[in-house]
Amino acid sequence: MNDLFSYNKITVEIIEALKEKIGANNVCADEEKLETYSHDEVPQSAYEKKYTAELLLFPESTAHVSEIMKIAHERKIPVTPRGAGTGLSGGALPAWGGIVMSFEKMNRILELDEENLTITAEPGVVTAEISRTAAQHGLLYAGDPCSGDASFIGGNIAENAGGNKVIKYGATGAQLLALEVVLADGSVTWFGGKRRKDVTGLDFVHLMAGSEGILGIITKAVLKLMPLPRHSVDLLAAFPDARSAIDFVPRIITEGGLIPASIEFLDQKALKLTERYLNTQVPAGDAGAALIIQLENNDAGLIEKEFEEIGKLSQKHGASEVYVADTRTTKDRIWQARKAVPEAVSFFYSRYTKEDLVVPTALVPQLLEMIREKAEADGLEWIAYGHAGDGNMHCTIISPDCEDWHERLHAVQERIYAELIKMGGTLSGEHGIGFKRKGYMKFFLDEAQLELIKRVKLAFDPQNILNPGKLVDWER
Amino acid sequence: MNDLFSYNKITVEIIEALKEKIGANNVCADEEKLETYSHDEVPQSAYEKKYTAELLLFPESTAHVSEIMKIAHERKIPVTPRGAGTGLSGGALPAWGGIVMSFEKMNRILELDEENLTITAEPGVVTAEISRTAAQHGLLYAGDPCSGDASFIGGNIAENAGGNKVIKYGATGAQLLALEVVLADGSVTWFGGKRRKDVTGLDFVHLMAGSEGILGIITKAVLKLMPLPRHSVDLLAAFPDARSAIDFVPRIITEGGLIPASIEFLDQKALKLTERYLNTQVPAGDAGAALIIQLENNDAGLIEKEFEEIGKLSQKHGASEVYVADTRTTKDRIWQARKAVPEAVSFFYSRYTKEDLVVPTALVPQLLEMIREKAEADGLEWIAYGHAGDGNMHCTIISPDCEDWHERLHAVQERIYAELIKMGGTLSGEHGIGFKRKGYMKFFLDEAQLELIKRVKLAFDPQNILNPGKLVDWER
Repeated sequence: MNDLFSYNKITVEIIEALKEKIGANNVCADEEKLETYSHDEVPQSAYEKKYTAELLLFPESTAHVSEIMKIAHERKIPVTPRGAGTGLSGGALPAWGGIVMSFEKMNRILELDEENLTITAEPGVVTAEISRTAAQHGLLYAGDPCSGDASFIGGNIAENAGGNKVIKYGATGAQLLALEVVLADGSVTWFGGKRRKDVTGLDFVHLMAGSEGILGIITKAVLKLMPLPRHSVDLLAAFPDARSAIDFVPRIITEGGLIPASIEFLDQKALKLTERYLNTQVPAGDAGAALIIQLENNDAGLIEKEFEEIGKLSQKHGASEVYVADTRTTKDRIWQARKAVPEAVSFFYSRYTKEDLVVPTALVPQLLEMIREKAEADGLEWIAYGHAGDGNMHCTIISPDCEDWHERLHAVQERIYAELIKMGGTLSGEHGIGFKRKGYMKFFLDEAQLELIKRVKLAFDPQNILNPGKLVDWER
Repeated sequence: MNDLFSYNKITVEIIEALKEKIGANNVCADEEKLETYSHDEVPQSAYEKKYTAELLLFPESTAHVSEIMKIAHERKIPVTPRGAGTGLSGGALPAWGGIVMSFEKMNRILELDEENLTITAEPGVVTAEISRTAAQHGLLYAGDPCSGDASFIGGNIAENAGGNKVIKYGATGAQLLALEVVLADGSVTWFGGKRRKDVTGLDFVHLMAGSEGILGIITKAVLKLMPLPRHSVDLLAAFPDARSAIDFVPRIITEGGLIPASIEFLDQKALKLTERYLNTQVPAGDAGAALIIQLENNDAGLIEKEFEEIGKLSQKHGASEVYVADTRTTKDRIWQARKAVPEAVSFFYSRYTKEDLVVPTALVPQLLEMIREKAEADGLEWIAYGHAGDGNMHCTIISPDCEDWHERLHAVQERIYAELIKMGGTLSGEHGIGFKRKGYMKFFLDEAQLELIKRVKLAFDPQNILNPGKLVDWER
């Protein structure tokens, strides 16, 4: 197994060859830049050492990517593709050095096809730009990661990014129709097509979603669009405590008989922390917990009926107050609180573990209860917020102020994971495994499946040069 | 490559070992039965020779499947899993003899989870039973293959069956949350879980969808459910000719601003043929072509508004008449015509090629025009019907009555495929490649991708015992 991870260093000669193929202005060995491009949003404190790329490349086209891969393949150089660096699992970390390939110059929307309801983009397009462009044509791009204002669509696909609207529309993978991919040896192929059904071959389009750059490099993506819902309303329901808020979530669907676009949850600590961070009063800032429920449809009359029904239902189930937002300004105010939580956490704390746990939706109350128990047993502070509608909670456990904080966090994580598995939950819903979580994979997937992941990885990339050291732990 | 296809024959000793593991009543070597279980709905005339299994097995549990695979793996015996035999690409054909494993005894719905909106079933459950069970609880299973009254859910998954509602809900793959799978060596694993988001590992759940039994054997499936739409209406719009009907399809979405649950198309020949077959007048039986448009939502007032809007829109775009069906009886009458087309074709003709072509939705008019041209140039009769809403048309070309009919059909197919590729279309939208279409794969996928399919197949099944000889053509 070990020679799978023996790579060659980048030589002056290789740098010259790369400059010739993709232009000297797209090749960078500046130390400061290398450092900047050698991490994502996982704090350095999560790792014991620092990982730095040897060379930074900025391809401008599929042909550039192909040329780079041909050289990397021939010389056995690791290549780590990188989007906007907003990742939360160290997926873009150059764990074995080599090349970091940044997609910031491949940032064009290539086509919006109103007849076929598709949008085709290069991997470096910011996700929000895709949504905006679609909306200008009365269309919806349904992928909606919280990082959408900054993250690149290529990174969204590589991580199968989730976000706020998964409950109704599915994660990024569900929006994919086709991908142009450069394979490990530099050959270029298309998976899928501008087709709503396709069983011609294995479904490599969806295998690529969430594959974290270990199988191939995405150079173009064809994404589904749909008619933009004509009306949307956001409700913020304040509850006396986390339990009553969370217990209400499955009732929205089962008693309300509809699937909202989003159901987001914030506990009291998340509300308070955000209020402090934003230095302004947030709606339901005094509540024990809050839910944000987003409804979308095409009929003004119906949406009014729906939000009144959900409003009444929430009060029947213990909500103390319900705010309704149907203008840009009031909506922004409601979502501001939710979207600021991660920033608030990293502003006030430097050592914490931001979890991405997911359980069967109806078990979110038990999940929160379990986290509370485990954290309290260890005397640790914690904050709970996230995508309650799809069972994906970003519980964040704050590190104690002590020397062995790393070990103590790690120990509580392992205790939480053991319980999580019993609940049918798993390690990551949307942030990915990457470098940060790969050590825990053995708790969640059996030996047969870990072995399959490795074999499929090597089927795509026999030399193990594409983002090596991610997703599974095989450097033993 | 060749020794990948050298298998051992089934001996008396192997039969005894199997009887001991799964019970003598589940092991069958009766010749007549072997013949019955050695084909699907592709007519024998499509192949030059007959393929017959050596042994037929009826596992009753995952443990049985695992025991069978352990023996098959040890002895190098090919194993072809089989659902209800309703397949349309020879996926269940035992192309290399060996074992046919029928799932008719693994036919239990194991759980309907109203809290988490899931249903868990064994592979031998008839799809319509899943829909019915869900509906009894006010829930919708959104997979809806035309064969649903007979086909098994395991087969639906293995083929990624499409059907009538893909435009709104996606194909069978989009309904999957988790699969229990027996791997080639008999080990049992779970891909996915009862979770709405999951990036813990590679997405093997969706890789299994449409993998035609070559990667692993599905023994349990956890499927998504959603609230059953409270109201649905079917419209049948009669048009003077195919062109005006088909041109209207993209307008439903772009001008109507909504995505119907189905948009189905029948040309004049399909209408006439069905009328003759059913020996009754069908709605719009005299029309030049017809569209069936199904609308679903939760509000009686809104659905009325929607069908009136779509009705008016269709008349604006050339529909001569619009029938509205909102009762069980009137709906059945509308759908009867559509659902009877395949039966009518196989009743009146014995030699034909039923295509499963798919193009970008807006190109369906060009597709039909191209088929007409190619068929007429060769003096061949043809019928067009299918899922216009998602670009998947089951054009059926009737064989001429001559000795070299096989060659003539083949020649026109190749001419059609060459044009199809230029349109961004592909070979199969939902029926699969299986045995019937694998010879054409080289026209649609490049060498790099065909090679990847083979490598991934061998990553899952190094001995090539799982449904060998399907999906790609490598017996060279």
